[in-house]
Amino acid sequence: MSGNYIPPLAERPSVTVDVVIFSLVEEDLRVLLVRRKYDPFAGMWAIPGGFVHPNESLEQAALRELEEETGVTDVYIEQLYTFGDPDRDPRMRVITVAYFALVPYDAIQHRPGDDAAETGWFSVFNLPPLAFDHKEIVEYALTRLRYKLEYSAVGFRLLPDVFTLSELQQAYEIILGEKLDKRNFRRKILSSGILEETGKRKKEGEGRPAMLYRYRDDAIAEVKTRRLFP
Amino acid sequence: MSGNYIPPLAERPSVTVDVVIFSLVEEDLRVLLVRRKYDPFAGMWAIPGGFVHPNESLEQAALRELEEETGVTDVYIEQLYTFGDPDRDPRMRVITVAYFALVPYDAIQHRPGDDAAETGWFSVFNLPPLAFDHKEIVEYALTRLRYKLEYSAVGFRLLPDVFTLSELQQAYEIILGEKLDKRNFRRKILSSGILEETGKRKKEGEGRPAMLYRYRDDAIAEVKTRRLFP
Repeated sequence: MSGNYIPPLAERPSVTVDVVIFSLVEEDLRVLLVRRKYDPFAGMWAIPGGFVHPNESLEQAALRELEEETGVTDVYIEQLYTFGDPDRDPRMRVITVAYFALVPYDAIQHRPGDDAAETGWFSVFNLPPLAFDHKEIVEYALTRLRYKLEYSAVGFRLLPDVFTLSELQQAYEIILGEKLDKRNFRRKILSSGILEETGKRKKEGEGRPAMLYRYRDDAIAEVKTRRLFP
Repeated sequence: MSGNYIPPLAERPSVTVDVVIFSLVEEDLRVLLVRRKYDPFAGMWAIPGGFVHPNESLEQAALRELEEETGVTDVYIEQLYTFGDPDRDPRMRVITVAYFALVPYDAIQHRPGDDAAETGWFSVFNLPPLAFDHKEIVEYALTRLRYKLEYSAVGFRLLPDVFTLSELQQAYEIILGEKLDKRNFRRKILSSGILEETGKRKKEGEGRPAMLYRYRDDAIAEVKTRRLFP
C-alpha cells in the first residue's frame, strides 16, 4: 500500500460475485440466467449474483448465490476473473468477482418450469442480450472451461459417472463447438491417463458393444493438470 | 443480483490491487518487496499495492503501482486472483485483486540501492515474513508462473532477446526450482514450436559454439497456449 491513505467511505466501490453456471442439457451447453426485476437493465437477462455480505468470504458468497438459484451445494466452483471497469454499472462503482460452476443437470432442483418467468437455461451459443458486461463474463468463462477441458479432468463434473468414448467425444464436441477426429480423440484421451475402463459394455449401433469408462479417482481428486516438465 | 439490495456505505469493503513483481536476478528468481511504514504490520515487508482510485480500472491501478515502484511501463502483467477473506486486514474489510508482473531486471530504474530502506528484491525461495496474506499471494503467483512457463512463451518476458538452450534451461530450472534432464528439455522445448534459431552461435565451454535462439514472434504475440484438441 502506498502510504497510509484509506479512501473515504463515499469512494469505496461495492463488490459483488457473479456465477456462470454451466450444465450439459439435451446435447447443448447451457448457462443459467436470471431475469432482472429492477433497474438498471430491468427485464433483461443476467447471470446470477449479488453483493458480498460483510462476514462471508468471496467463495462463500458465490456458493450462496449458486445454492439460491439451483438448490445445489456440492459442485465444482472456481474463481474466474474480477471485472472492475469504472463504468460497468451505471449506478455506481461495482467490482464483481466472477466464478464459474459446473453442475450436472440431473442434480438441479429448480428446473426452468418451476419459476419460468424468472430463470432459464440458455444455450451458450445463442444467448439473449445480457445486462452489464455479462456477455463478456460468459465468454470468458467458456474460454476457461474449454481450456480446462483440454488439460484436466474437469469434464467429469458435467458427465454421468460412466460413459462410452463416443458419449465423451460428443460432450467434448458440444463444449468445444467443433467436430473432433475420432481416432485422434481416442488416442489422446486414453493416453492422458484420466480415464479407466469399468469392465462393462454398452450397445451402441452395430457391432460389439462399446466399453464404458469412468474418470480415475486420482484425476478427479487433483483435477489433474498435465505437466510438460520434467 | 438478488433483488434490489445495495449494501449501505458502511458495509462496503475497500478494494486494493497488489502486484507480485518477478525478475531473474543473479541466477535467482526474485520478487520486489516494500517495507511498510505504517500499521498494520509497520516495519514488515509486503508486496507493492494500494487502493484502487475511483476512476481507474483494476489493471490501470496495477500498472500505476508497478510504475511507481519500478519505473517500468511496458511489462507483462496478468490478473492472478482476488483474495477477500473477511479478516485478512485487521483494520477493516479489504478485498485485494492480485496481479503478477514479469520484468527484465535490466529494465528496472529503481535498483535496490536507490532507496534501500524501503524496497528490496528478495529470493522467492527465501522470503522474509510478509504482512497480511502476502505469503499466500506470492506462492500463488509462483505456481501460476511455473504453470505458464510450461505451456506458453511467457518466459520471454524474463529473458534476454537471444539465448542458448543451456541458458534457457538454466532459467527454467531457477523458476521451477528443480534440475531438468538436458535431452528431454531440448526435445520438448524445440518441439513446442515457440523458439526459432537466430543463425548465430555463442561459445560455451568446449566444442562447437552453441546455437542462439529467440522466441518466435507468433508465440510471443499469443503467449501461445498448447492445445490438446483437435
